[in-house]
Amino acid sequence: MQKAFQRIAIFGVGLIGGSFALALKKAGAVEQIVGVGRSQASLEKAQQLGIIDEIALNAEQALCNCDLVLIAAPVAQTGAILKAIYPHLQPGTIVTDAGSTKADVVAAARESLGEKIAQFVPAHPIAGRELNGPEAALVDLYVGKKAVITRLPENSDADVTRVAWAWQQCGAIIHHLEPAAHDAVFAAVSHLPHLLAYALVDDIARKPHADTLFQYAASGFRDFTRIAGSSPEMWRDISLANRAAMLQELDSYTARLSILRQHLVDADSEGIEGIYANAQRARHNWISAIEAAEKQQREGGD
Amino acid sequence: MQKAFQRIAIFGVGLIGGSFALALKKAGAVEQIVGVGRSQASLEKAQQLGIIDEIALNAEQALCNCDLVLIAAPVAQTGAILKAIYPHLQPGTIVTDAGSTKADVVAAARESLGEKIAQFVPAHPIAGRELNGPEAALVDLYVGKKAVITRLPENSDADVTRVAWAWQQCGAIIHHLEPAAHDAVFAAVSHLPHLLAYALVDDIARKPHADTLFQYAASGFRDFTRIAGSSPEMWRDISLANRAAMLQELDSYTARLSILRQHLVDADSEGIEGIYANAQRARHNWISAIEAAEKQQREGGD
Repeated sequence: MQKAFQRIAIFGVGLIGGSFALALKKAGAVEQIVGVGRSQASLEKAQQLGIIDEIALNAEQALCNCDLVLIAAPVAQTGAILKAIYPHLQPGTIVTDAGSTKADVVAAARESLGEKIAQFVPAHPIAGRELNGPEAALVDLYVGKKAVITRLPENSDADVTRVAWAWQQCGAIIHHLEPAAHDAVFAAVSHLPHLLAYALVDDIARKPHADTLFQYAASGFRDFTRIAGSSPEMWRDISLANRAAMLQELDSYTARLSILRQHLVDADSEGIEGIYANAQRARHNWISAIEAAEKQQREGGD
Repeated sequence: MQKAFQRIAIFGVGLIGGSFALALKKAGAVEQIVGVGRSQASLEKAQQLGIIDEIALNAEQALCNCDLVLIAAPVAQTGAILKAIYPHLQPGTIVTDAGSTKADVVAAARESLGEKIAQFVPAHPIAGRELNGPEAALVDLYVGKKAVITRLPENSDADVTRVAWAWQQCGAIIHHLEPAAHDAVFAAVSHLPHLLAYALVDDIARKPHADTLFQYAASGFRDFTRIAGSSPEMWRDISLANRAAMLQELDSYTARLSILRQHLVDADSEGIEGIYANAQRARHNWISAIEAAEKQQREGGD
C-alpha cells in the first residue's frame, strides 16, 4: 500500500502538468503541490484554478522537502531544468518527466544528473489536447490512457513502482518500453501524424485562394488537422529530439504516397482500392480492439 | 412558397441518400419516397428503418410519377444510373445527385441524358460519416452543413431553386460553384486528406511490428485517421474521377513535405517551427471563423 506524496514539485503547469496535479489532488494522493516555470502568469493562473498550492521562484525553493518532481515542460528544456534541479536534489526525492520523446531526455538526464541518475524515472503519459496552458488542464485527462515508463537500469524497483502508482492514481494504465523502442513507436503513430497535419494546413494556407479552400473545409478536414492545433514549440522540440526516427517514418510514408501517386497517374482502380481497403480494414480492427479493451476495463476493473 | 414533393426516388439508400430521406420526411417536404439500388438487403433495411416507403425493382418503376430523383451512389455508377433513367424520364421530373465530384458527373450526365440534360441539376452536400449503409443515416446529418449546387447553363432557375429548397429542408446552407472549381476545392480540403489518411494507416499496417504500433496509437491518431474508415469503393471512385486535381494537390503537398524533411535533416529549428506555427495560426483562424458563423446562424436564424 503506497502512501500519499507529501509535496510534489511540477515544472511546467500547463495541460500535462496541470492535469496530473488535478488528478492527484482528486485522488487524495498528495498533500501539497508547488509549481515552477517560465511564465509567472501561468503559475498565477494555475494557483487561481487550484492546480497548485504554492509558486516557487526557483528550483531550490521548489525541491525543498519534495518527494516527487514532475518535469512537464517542452522536451528541449528538460536538460536545463535537470541542471537547475541537480544541486538541490536530495536522496529520497524521485524525479520523473512527461516528455513525448525519451532517448534524448535520458541522455540529457545522464548529463545533468550525473551520479544521481538513479533518481530519474523517465515516463510519458499518452494523452493530450490541442489546447495548452493551465486553463486546458483536465482532472480526467489520463483516465484510461496509457502511461509509458522507460525505466533506466539504475532505477530502483521501489522508485519505478512509486512513479507508476502516481500515474495509476490519475487513472492511467502503466506500460513499460525501452527508451529507443518508445521513440520508434511514437515517431510512427504520433510524431509523424503531427508533422503531416501541420504540413497540410501550411500548404493550404500558403495558396492564393486559401480563404475559399478553408470555407469549404468540413468535419473530415477538421478531425484530420486537429493535431495541427497543438503547440508549435512543443512539436518543434519533439521533431528535433526524435528526428532520426521521424525521418525513417517520413520516408516510409512518402514511399507509400509515391505508389499511390503512380496508381492515380495510371488510373489503377484496383491498386487504389487495395490501399484504401487495407487501411480501412486495419483501422476497423484497431478500433474494435480498443473498444473491446475499454469494455473489458469497464466490466472487469482491477 | 415551394410545395412538398409528391414522390422522390432515391438511387442508393445509404448514409447520404438515407439521411436526405429522413430529413425531408421530418420536414414534411415529401409524401412518398421510393428506394432503388444494387443491394436488396440495404433496400429492405431502409424500408424497415422508415427511410423509404417503397422499393422499386428498376428505374422505370422508380421514376413513375416521380417529381425528384436523387442519385446517391458511388460516383462511378452515375453514368449507368442516368442511362437507366433516361428512357423513363418525363418532363417535369428533376434529377439531382450527391456526388463528391462534379466535372465527371456532368460529363456522364451529358452523355447519358442527351437532350434531357436541362433536367439534371448537379449538387454535392458537404457532410459525411465514416460509416456506410442505411443504418448510418441520420435525420440531422445536413443541419448547418453546406450543399453546393454546380448548376448547368441549361438548368432552369425554377429547377435549381427546387433542388436548393430540398436541401434547405434538410437544414443545409446552399452554395453555388462551377463544376471545375468545385472539384479543385474539394481535391484540396477533402479528397487529398482522405488519400493521406488511407496511406498512413496502410503504411503502418504493412510494417512487421504493426500490432505494437497500433497498441500505442492514441486519440490524435484516431482523429487524424478517422476518414480512413470511409468506404474504400466510394473513395476509389472519387480519386479516379478527380485524379487530375488530386495529383496537383498531392504534388503541392509532397513539395511541402520535402521542405520539412530537409529542415529535419538540418535540425533547422526555426524552419520547423515556422511551418508548424503558420499551420497552427491558420487552423486557429479557420476554427474561429467557423465558430463565429455558427454563432451568427444560431442567433440570426433565417
